[in-house]
Amino acid sequence: MNVSTRGPVRVVGTGLLGTSVGLGLSTQGVEVTLHDPSRTALALARDVGAGRPAAATDPEPTLVVVAAPPDVTADVVLAELAAHPEAVVTDVASVKGHVLAELRASGADLSRYVGSHPMAGRERSGPSAAVPDLFLGRPWVIADSGSARPDALLAVRSLAVDLGAVPVTMDAAAHDAAVAAVSHVPQVAASLVAARLRDLDDAALGLSGQGVRDVTRLAASDPALWTSILAANAGAVREVLVDLRGDLDAVIDALAAAEGADGPESVRPGALRALADAIARGNAGVVRIPGKHGGAQRTYAVVSVLVPDTPGELARLLTDVGDAGVNLEDLQLEHAAGRPVGIANISVLPASAEHLETELTARGWRLVR
Amino acid sequence: MNVSTRGPVRVVGTGLLGTSVGLGLSTQGVEVTLHDPSRTALALARDVGAGRPAAATDPEPTLVVVAAPPDVTADVVLAELAAHPEAVVTDVASVKGHVLAELRASGADLSRYVGSHPMAGRERSGPSAAVPDLFLGRPWVIADSGSARPDALLAVRSLAVDLGAVPVTMDAAAHDAAVAAVSHVPQVAASLVAARLRDLDDAALGLSGQGVRDVTRLAASDPALWTSILAANAGAVREVLVDLRGDLDAVIDALAAAEGADGPESVRPGALRALADAIARGNAGVVRIPGKHGGAQRTYAVVSVLVPDTPGELARLLTDVGDAGVNLEDLQLEHAAGRPVGIANISVLPASAEHLETELTARGWRLVR
Repeated sequence: MNVSTRGPVRVVGTGLLGTSVGLGLSTQGVEVTLHDPSRTALALARDVGAGRPAAATDPEPTLVVVAAPPDVTADVVLAELAAHPEAVVTDVASVKGHVLAELRASGADLSRYVGSHPMAGRERSGPSAAVPDLFLGRPWVIADSGSARPDALLAVRSLAVDLGAVPVTMDAAAHDAAVAAVSHVPQVAASLVAARLRDLDDAALGLSGQGVRDVTRLAASDPALWTSILAANAGAVREVLVDLRGDLDAVIDALAAAEGADGPESVRPGALRALADAIARGNAGVVRIPGKHGGAQRTYAVVSVLVPDTPGELARLLTDVGDAGVNLEDLQLEHAAGRPVGIANISVLPASAEHLETELTARGWRLVR
Repeated sequence: MNVSTRGPVRVVGTGLLGTSVGLGLSTQGVEVTLHDPSRTALALARDVGAGRPAAATDPEPTLVVVAAPPDVTADVVLAELAAHPEAVVTDVASVKGHVLAELRASGADLSRYVGSHPMAGRERSGPSAAVPDLFLGRPWVIADSGSARPDALLAVRSLAVDLGAVPVTMDAAAHDAAVAAVSHVPQVAASLVAARLRDLDDAALGLSGQGVRDVTRLAASDPALWTSILAANAGAVREVLVDLRGDLDAVIDALAAAEGADGPESVRPGALRALADAIARGNAGVVRIPGKHGGAQRTYAVVSVLVPDTPGELARLLTDVGDAGVNLEDLQLEHAAGRPVGIANISVLPASAEHLETELTARGWRLVR
């Protein structure tokens, strides 16, 4: 076997993450024992092949993975450190600073503890949603406290690599600030924008296009889960939201200035500039999101094609794209309300766009330019 | 020919929208004359087949379509009403209230004017980006001022139908309030969230997932264009943003309360509830966005499949979906940073999900549950 992780690995908490960890290790021949306060969750995790329920006669684990809810993670880590004095203990909670602070305050042995956070999840939850590939290609943050032994850091790093993830080392505060900006604040923004749609009439909602769908997709998230995440990362999230509110105030002030004006030339000096600046700052931010292959975001050319809404048409289109010798970098579908047709936006390298357009036109596809 | 629109139709402004209108009508045999202050834009529009440049000897148009920038639209409409005293005049500006107010203030003959707004656009602009199908299946708002003659309303409605759009009648204020909520505020929110990413380091940005990509996609928009749109709809946008700021203040206050707490039980009463309420209000809003077929949003089951990043694999997957007899309702791709693999999230009717999973597994695909 090619894995570096040596068992037994003890997984505490057999929800989606814990069960996926157990499954990913078990399928590679690593011995895994499972524990969960819910006997149902534990039995389900066993049944999907994540490992066997822990027993008092088990040999001591080399590594304990705590996959408990964020608000109890520190307590569980403390108990595991005490119960298994030779084991390295990690947790996979989505916020790292408050866990570390609680452990420090409790005088825990931080030489054997390494917090971590795999950036993975699915729309479904629980042990039955677990898959060994959950972590494939995802960043797995190793939160270095500065107190862990090198072999403890290595053990958690190896766990990430063995599960197909990409380990990324940063300290807990840097992690929490990062997820505040790239995950928690986008969630709040999506919810706040979606909340504005509640009282619109159906005719107004009928004007919804792809833009509002994209911005609000996250707004379908679970309130209980997100309350615990936001509360656990309250400081970092608040800091970003306060900055955002500063920009929002500037936009609202500029709009108030524009509102009473007879035309652009009579708007208070600086107000239009404030609006343009807000959009321009967004331009500067969005280009920093890394692209498909983990590097800087690449600019792709988009070839848009009308696709009849009948089974097989999209497959036929993509077959034609492949036959044209063009690699599809991304694909996004737009639906035309009330019409049996959609638009496929195909992202390709700019050098391939013209060739693809020629080929698709020759094969009878209608392009939308 | 099956169109109701009788020419000649005069199109004033040969950018993306005006040229697409001309092209859509010309291809159906309607006589179209074109005017634009830019001789280059005019020649391009002629060359793509949108119509012929207007000349002094032209017969009087029956319909004038003003497709000028929002800030000059009212002036152009006034001039056209005066120059063509028998014609119905419409415009396609994305904000309707300020155009109507300017026309009223100028004492224009509103019996022949009907403002309108086709909810269509592309990432590319200008006459060379025009296509006759631009409006296919899109809502086309007919902004009823209450002063237009029935035949004028009918002429603009027929124009929309002839171009494949779905006419939606609402007054200018209702239109402006609707687009504020479903288009302009999502744009502002996307820009404000993206602006927070500017100063993150690369490691932090490397944690970006699909969520922040969705929320910030609109942030790549053009600042000059959006400054003019936001300024033209300042009142309605400000009203929605002020409501949004109220919710944002509540979230920030709740986070401040959670920040100093030792655990959930010590947070100020009501603070966690305020966070949960903000997310729950988003839940209530996002479900109101109409789905693919123009009705209420349907809940689809999502089948997630690992797709190797080699040409032809996605086409092969979709062919297998079609062969399984399952209609794909939506498709969204996730990319795994730094790995030659991605995940295709296939939305299908819930009743088809299990069958599809069985069929795809039998054909060798790896599911992500």
